[in-house]
Amino acid sequence: MAHVLGQNQYGKAENRIVRVYRDSTRHEIKDLNVSVSLQGDFEDVHLTGSNANCLPTDTTKNTVYAFAKEYGIESAEAFGITLARHFVDNTERGVVRSARIRIEEYVWDRIKTPDNSARFIGADEVGHSFVRNGQETRTTEVVYDGETVQVISGLKDLIVMNSTNSEFWGYIKDRYTTLQEAYDRILATQVTARWKYGFSGKDGEAQPNWNRSYQHVRRHMLEAFAETYSYSLQQTLHAMGTRVLNNRAEVDEVRLELPNKHHFLVDLEPFGLKNENEVYYAADRMYGLIEGTVHREGVVPVIPVA
Amino acid sequence: MAHVLGQNQYGKAENRIVRVYRDSTRHEIKDLNVSVSLQGDFEDVHLTGSNANCLPTDTTKNTVYAFAKEYGIESAEAFGITLARHFVDNTERGVVRSARIRIEEYVWDRIKTPDNSARFIGADEVGHSFVRNGQETRTTEVVYDGETVQVISGLKDLIVMNSTNSEFWGYIKDRYTTLQEAYDRILATQVTARWKYGFSGKDGEAQPNWNRSYQHVRRHMLEAFAETYSYSLQQTLHAMGTRVLNNRAEVDEVRLELPNKHHFLVDLEPFGLKNENEVYYAADRMYGLIEGTVHREGVVPVIPVA
Amino acid sequence: MAHVLGQNQYGKAENRIVRVYRDSTRHEIKDLNVSVSLQGDFEDVHLTGSNANCLPTDTTKNTVYAFAKEYGIESAEAFGITLARHFVDNTERGVVRSARIRIEEYVWDRIKTPDNSARFIGADEVGHSFVRNGQETRTTEVVYDGETVQVISGLKDLIVMNSTNSEFWGYIKDRYTTLQEAYDRILATQVTARWKYGFSGKDGEAQPNWNRSYQHVRRHMLEAFAETYSYSLQQTLHAMGTRVLNNRAEVDEVRLELPNKHHFLVDLEPFGLKNENEVYYAADRMYGLIEGTVHREGVVPVIPVA
Amino acid sequence: MAHVLGQNQYGKAENRIVRVYRDSTRHEIKDLNVSVSLQGDFEDVHLTGSNANCLPTDTTKNTVYAFAKEYGIESAEAFGITLARHFVDNTERGVVRSARIRIEEYVWDRIKTPDNSARFIGADEVGHSFVRNGQETRTTEVVYDGETVQVISGLKDLIVMNSTNSEFWGYIKDRYTTLQEAYDRILATQVTARWKYGFSGKDGEAQPNWNRSYQHVRRHMLEAFAETYSYSLQQTLHAMGTRVLNNRAEVDEVRLELPNKHHFLVDLEPFGLKNENEVYYAADRMYGLIEGTVHREGVVPVIPVA
Repeated sequence: MAHVLGQNQYGKAENRIVRVYRDSTRHEIKDLNVSVSLQGDFEDVHLTGSNANCLPTDTTKNTVYAFAKEYGIESAEAFGITLARHFVDNTERGVVRSARIRIEEYVWDRIKTPDNSARFIGADEVGHSFVRNGQETRTTEVVYDGETVQVISGLKDLIVMNSTNSEFWGYIKDRYTTLQEAYDRILATQVTARWKYGFSGKDGEAQPNWNRSYQHVRRHMLEAFAETYSYSLQQTLHAMGTRVLNNRAEVDEVRLELPNKHHFLVDLEPFGLKNENEVYYAADRMYGLIEGTVHREGVVPVIPVA
Repeated sequence: MAHVLGQNQYGKAENRIVRVYRDSTRHEIKDLNVSVSLQGDFEDVHLTGSNANCLPTDTTKNTVYAFAKEYGIESAEAFGITLARHFVDNTERGVVRSARIRIEEYVWDRIKTPDNSARFIGADEVGHSFVRNGQETRTTEVVYDGETVQVISGLKDLIVMNSTNSEFWGYIKDRYTTLQEAYDRILATQVTARWKYGFSGKDGEAQPNWNRSYQHVRRHMLEAFAETYSYSLQQTLHAMGTRVLNNRAEVDEVRLELPNKHHFLVDLEPFGLKNENEVYYAADRMYGLIEGTVHREGVVPVIPVA
Repeated sequence: MAHVLGQNQYGKAENRIVRVYRDSTRHEIKDLNVSVSLQGDFEDVHLTGSNANCLPTDTTKNTVYAFAKEYGIESAEAFGITLARHFVDNTERGVVRSARIRIEEYVWDRIKTPDNSARFIGADEVGHSFVRNGQETRTTEVVYDGETVQVISGLKDLIVMNSTNSEFWGYIKDRYTTLQEAYDRILATQVTARWKYGFSGKDGEAQPNWNRSYQHVRRHMLEAFAETYSYSLQQTLHAMGTRVLNNRAEVDEVRLELPNKHHFLVDLEPFGLKNENEVYYAADRMYGLIEGTVHREGVVPVIPVA
Repeated sequence: MAHVLGQNQYGKAENRIVRVYRDSTRHEIKDLNVSVSLQGDFEDVHLTGSNANCLPTDTTKNTVYAFAKEYGIESAEAFGITLARHFVDNTERGVVRSARIRIEEYVWDRIKTPDNSARFIGADEVGHSFVRNGQETRTTEVVYDGETVQVISGLKDLIVMNSTNSEFWGYIKDRYTTLQEAYDRILATQVTARWKYGFSGKDGEAQPNWNRSYQHVRRHMLEAFAETYSYSLQQTLHAMGTRVLNNRAEVDEVRLELPNKHHFLVDLEPFGLKNENEVYYAADRMYGLIEGTVHREGVVPVIPVA
């Protein structure tokens, strides 16, 4: 039976780049991990051994570093858009038909010193010391196909916990059910979120303020997590997604992956002690995994299922 | 603007299970990591806080362990099919409309002792000692929607290297190209492969011999990697995929993800030494990432892009 | 030739425990990973198969959880001291002669909501929402041998960077040297620090304020890192260690392990661009690794080399 | 109070090197991760900012790669000895007083093809295809102080399991004991082993056959694990260590770290099923951790406690 080459793509993954802005006495830094992936006319590369249509992955890497100088990095999203457009619009003979740029961003805070203003912010020796924030990793994925830009931003590894205001009961009981109903439990999860922007990169369309939008989306998710009295992690997920849509007009769709980081109440009765929801064992595996999308009516959701 | 709940799913992930068969003097073991994910009528769970339609993730976990006893584990694929069918067919009021079971399998070899037959395989004390193989992880994903079973098996973390018979030249050169052409380089990659079976779970349709099929698919990929004189990793990828389709009728589609684990020739000239393709620096990041699907003509490919 | 049993120890490692204090409307939480290791009269356990002298690792685990209720967790250090003393002082027939408790602590911040005081801190629904800080992991190791307590606290995975004020030149040049001298480079490292307290657990000796001491030691290290104009990472290490000793009388000895997280200036000249210390490649491996101890004169250093 | 600089060391860590031997139609490869650490007269580097006594870590890296060409890599141990001697004996003004070389080795197997001898081992196209073994990582640590060489070799991540012939009972029971005695359990562990050679590098002293010794030590540990009817993991540890000392005269001391990878019998009774030691949950954390040294009488043990 004959066979054919299907979807294929390639590029240089995980280009680690730090861009320093030294224009003032306070430096600014951007710390990114950039992955490039290209689709296009690459049949010959696979079938004949000819690389005439192959832009080397090494060149895509060089482009990332050169663009950091030529265009700067105002935000991961804007940087990704510039890169994606370049690969599609400028590669020889139009062999690249679609480019996907994925970026992870690591946030750094300034190191605070006791007398920051006087002693430390002098003429030459200032504002160049940073500590990595470590709370979450910011992500974005930009796809450009020659016509439309699609931006899906997100975050991962943001770990949150409610020490109360969570219940779970009233569920299906079958032959294999042993779980006891819970009327006051810990609810903890490690948030992976992706949200799609309405922005499509048309001529004259202004880019959102990506950094500001990120801060607000993140804040709304945290607040919804904290303020939702929860009867299931699904309910909390839904509250987090709708909170974002209700408050951020630039976002069309939100997808959340929420592992239920189980905290099991330890049985202290054998030791003559009463555990009044105070001592928990934090388990690694197995874990519940709750995933879901919330999107605006009329919008076709595009964020893929992991 | 109104918003709606889109695709959603949940279940218990990473149930680690070891099943021992002690029927004979030589034990057999199966070592799996089983993840359950269910789709269905779960709107209320998200929106109202009612869990009346929620089969707890804890129950899905219990089911995995109970089924390991009730039905045994002949292969990860067969075990996954049994589980997926159960969740869809047997859950109350048909609220589960589709079930996905993902399984990782860790292979163990027997520990060989010098005089295995005589001293060690006696009446009571025998064939119960194992060492984890460690070469690759075997994977499968079974989806059942009430009508059709879909099985995508695979492997990951299989690391291979050709120390010669690999070239890369004749590619596009643009402003950002600095790569030197290579006429004899190391080609190394860490194989992630997934392949879809034609099996659809219809009444009376016999299951393939999953374990035997796995061994053959793996062997064909290794042989194609070793025997292909390569002008690009794309070409090697294509050779690996087609080799499987040419030899295994039960497979319809193969998708490969091949990071190019770069080995850079070290410049020894500053030390008065000549490096005749002998001393390499094995890099971690950045790396080329080559991905592609090969499928039979007329078959609609279904393995998702990572 | 005869052989003998040498140093040996055992216990339950990585007991993950979350302790919730629900006494007020604002909950407090402690999130620890506790590892127990015991030394003592365990020859028979190894040689004869008799477990008469073996306190099961499972019992050491139970003790950790029970003590979290009985004694609470004011600090990792105080909790470790209570546990270590228990195992040595209370185990049957004195078979445990020395106990070592290692603890990792994960710090959580409160989730801030816009109107924290009014809307959120009400009667029932309050101060129970947390986000994991993620910046560093706090560590401690307590050893008790029946007479003396030794406390070595620390931190790990605190990542810091100076974007300037770092040079490296004037070093030895031999046949294998190709490194160019640097007069303005990025200095970045991932701090692992351990410091020994003078506290020895004698009768009547007050415990330091462990949590307060931690905050100060951490602050002094960050400040020394930020304020040192550096000619080598060794010099920065020394400045960090001495800053702690100069400011914290309760600390006798500081040991630091500082990987030099290399940031290489990218050569942009092939692209007609000038890199004025703005665009860097952040490398993973290989990396310089600088380790050193600073201690008070007359004190015998005890923190082991990794 | 005055303070002083204590133990300190530095060097380049994790130099990843692949050495290809292409002398015959069958290539040979060595795949190492080499870490260099130097001790010596480095006070000034820490205190004054002068690097006059500093051999850059970059130079130590270059030396590793150059030596791979100049001296080849017959074994990790021999390569480590050559490197360590070089740094101490040849660095300017004798500033390096002691050098430690740590090496991890990753083993590769040849890819087997069906007709290996005829089709594949031809004149030009042969024996250059490898698959990483993956079972364990081989380790060594060489220290040279200008007089004596000390070699401690080992392995890590070798995962083994006995599905029976393991019991645990008769232990101490105190207020915190809930563990049930076990008369037939799974015993599984992930072996980390280090063993010290008697070899001291004196003039005229022949080096052991390091590769052969490794294979034998590994085999004896596996056999002892498989053949020991175990009443505790401590007993198994002791059997493994003594088996090596009894059979390998070149080894003086063995230290083992054996995490007890718990496999818990799943309670299937709620589902009307009987679990006859067939279905286990493989836990990640917490875990027992058993560590111990066995050494020849009269030998002072030197392998440090982790």
